[in-house]
Amino acid sequence: MKKRPTIEMVAERAGVSRQTVSNAANAPHRLRPETLKRVLGTIDELGYRPSHAARSLRTRATGVIGCRLLPSNYGGTGGVLDRLLHALCDAARASGYNVLAFSVGTDDEEIGVFDDLLRRNAVDGFVLANTHHGDVRPDWLVDQGARFVAFGRPWGVERPRHSWVDVDGASGTSEAVNHLAGLGHTRIAFLGLGEGNGVGDDRFHGWQRAMQDLGLPVEDLVARADDGIASGKALADQLLDAPQAPTAFVCVSDAMALGAMRCIQDRGMETGRDVSVVGFDDSPVASVITPRLSSVRQPVEGVAHKLVEILLSELSGTHRRPSRVLLAPWLVRRDSTGERPSTGYAATQKGAASRRGRRQSKSPST
Amino acid sequence: MKKRPTIEMVAERAGVSRQTVSNAANAPHRLRPETLKRVLGTIDELGYRPSHAARSLRTRATGVIGCRLLPSNYGGTGGVLDRLLHALCDAARASGYNVLAFSVGTDDEEIGVFDDLLRRNAVDGFVLANTHHGDVRPDWLVDQGARFVAFGRPWGVERPRHSWVDVDGASGTSEAVNHLAGLGHTRIAFLGLGEGNGVGDDRFHGWQRAMQDLGLPVEDLVARADDGIASGKALADQLLDAPQAPTAFVCVSDAMALGAMRCIQDRGMETGRDVSVVGFDDSPVASVITPRLSSVRQPVEGVAHKLVEILLSELSGTHRRPSRVLLAPWLVRRDSTGERPSTGYAATQKGAASRRGRRQSKSPST
Repeated sequence: MKKRPTIEMVAERAGVSRQTVSNAANAPHRLRPETLKRVLGTIDELGYRPSHAARSLRTRATGVIGCRLLPSNYGGTGGVLDRLLHALCDAARASGYNVLAFSVGTDDEEIGVFDDLLRRNAVDGFVLANTHHGDVRPDWLVDQGARFVAFGRPWGVERPRHSWVDVDGASGTSEAVNHLAGLGHTRIAFLGLGEGNGVGDDRFHGWQRAMQDLGLPVEDLVARADDGIASGKALADQLLDAPQAPTAFVCVSDAMALGAMRCIQDRGMETGRDVSVVGFDDSPVASVITPRLSSVRQPVEGVAHKLVEILLSELSGTHRRPSRVLLAPWLVRRDSTGERPSTGYAATQKGAASRRGRRQSKSPST
Repeated sequence: MKKRPTIEMVAERAGVSRQTVSNAANAPHRLRPETLKRVLGTIDELGYRPSHAARSLRTRATGVIGCRLLPSNYGGTGGVLDRLLHALCDAARASGYNVLAFSVGTDDEEIGVFDDLLRRNAVDGFVLANTHHGDVRPDWLVDQGARFVAFGRPWGVERPRHSWVDVDGASGTSEAVNHLAGLGHTRIAFLGLGEGNGVGDDRFHGWQRAMQDLGLPVEDLVARADDGIASGKALADQLLDAPQAPTAFVCVSDAMALGAMRCIQDRGMETGRDVSVVGFDDSPVASVITPRLSSVRQPVEGVAHKLVEILLSELSGTHRRPSRVLLAPWLVRRDSTGERPSTGYAATQKGAASRRGRRQSKSPST
């Protein structure tokens, strides 16, 4: 691999000082035309590209933060990233910055866009979303001297060289378990993603930890599949067919939770009365379906604020060590979680009465 | 008001040609340092700012399209604008462009951001969303010589000076009426927005036109309020209390439709069997609630493609006359619309049987 040309190499080849090369790029009117022409020719010849980090630091010229727009996957995690984009635009704007959004299909294409934007000096830095195991993007950006902050932990990397902000998914699923245990549930299942997904594993561990802390069984109470309503339905079906079926589901996503709710309905039971369900992400659907879905909500505004704060402090050069920020989500309690029915799936009078009471309090007009 | 300084005024004051002033901004290395210094000083002194349009045309430098990110209003129209942003990023990317998204609270603030982005030459043009009566933004942009395309018609403006792309809402609500009439409904109500809202009025007119074309009554079948689930519920309640109650609702939004569905449920009836409901926008909620909501879907990808196509052709200077593009939406038929019950709200055996049949066909596993 060819060594990346430095400003010193250009200066030596053109027979000028380091400062003159810098001026050619940043203050061309300070140079005599013939000098400018020679330096620009040498820059071109060697393929020299000024360090983006150094240039950003010096000029902070663009006022723009680049961020990939991930495909919307409502009910899944995509809704959260749309909410994050809104929050990011708000937080950036409050600091005089805007967000440049781009849509690509793969991480490699994303790196291609990073490269293009850096070459054209079109952004000051990036927010990197959707981090995952084997993610090649952070190292690429660090090697380029680019400034960025990740939304998501550096899964599988022991000594990350960059700053990140993430939501503590495990604490969210722990809270869900504690809520359900407080309603009398003991067989609380987890509907999760395949192992090796950082976000999915984190949420699984929170469920597992809380169950063990409460002395509740975890055997035969975990089912895993790719995210989606159909998956959630199939997994819930499978667990409800078991001899010792769960009375509650903690789900890795709202999509899984919606699937579990369909399964419960198709079995002639009622979610929140016969079987309880907790989703994750509090997607827009959660508050409008019937019964309304209890779900763990990510503090998206807080995440966006932290991302911008850290990125701007890195851009200003006052911030040298990578930051690590983990924010806690919280459970939004709605109608999909209720007391454990006293005898199997039979609707107890008590359960039915409490459900009627809740519904009436929401609809005083009926 | 002071006259905006022109390139001629700068050239005269600095004692140079028009071309020299242009070079000072775009090719400073072509000028002798003392000339450059004098011209830049005069530019500064007069507050001259090159025409953005002319500069974009010449340089097409940024590869960036600016677009305000409107607050998400899931269930309402906000979801459509999020979908549009994704589609816009895709369409822009396919042409080597990116989208700069910014979030502001008011049109005046939006103009402030336009001004800032134009001054800093940070974008080549804009997509203007959420056009409305008395919209001051298009004229401001035209007067600045900025390139832009609106998503939304220039409501209330007879001779717009800019290009726009919009969705033919009236044809969507007409299709909804025809669908319901085909199912035997004759008293088909419209739940709309207050008069004077361009989008709302357009959707109302489509309902009205189709009803009149079919010879159906329109008296006492319209209710209006601000968008929202609570509004939809209240309006549906009001119409269902009337002596000659409707058996179907065409709604200006999915939020209104969700409200109508709640009202129907709270009255102990079933949507799709006792009363039919059609929403507008096919928001993510529509396909996951029970029963699934029939809704008019906007061709967001087509809109984004047209917006980018028109903007780029205006940027390239090949496109001189404002374009006007109206795209047709289509009705997505789901379970919230069914045959008119033969006697009032009583569930007919036929209706119940056909509903059971539909449900079974969707859930082969149960």
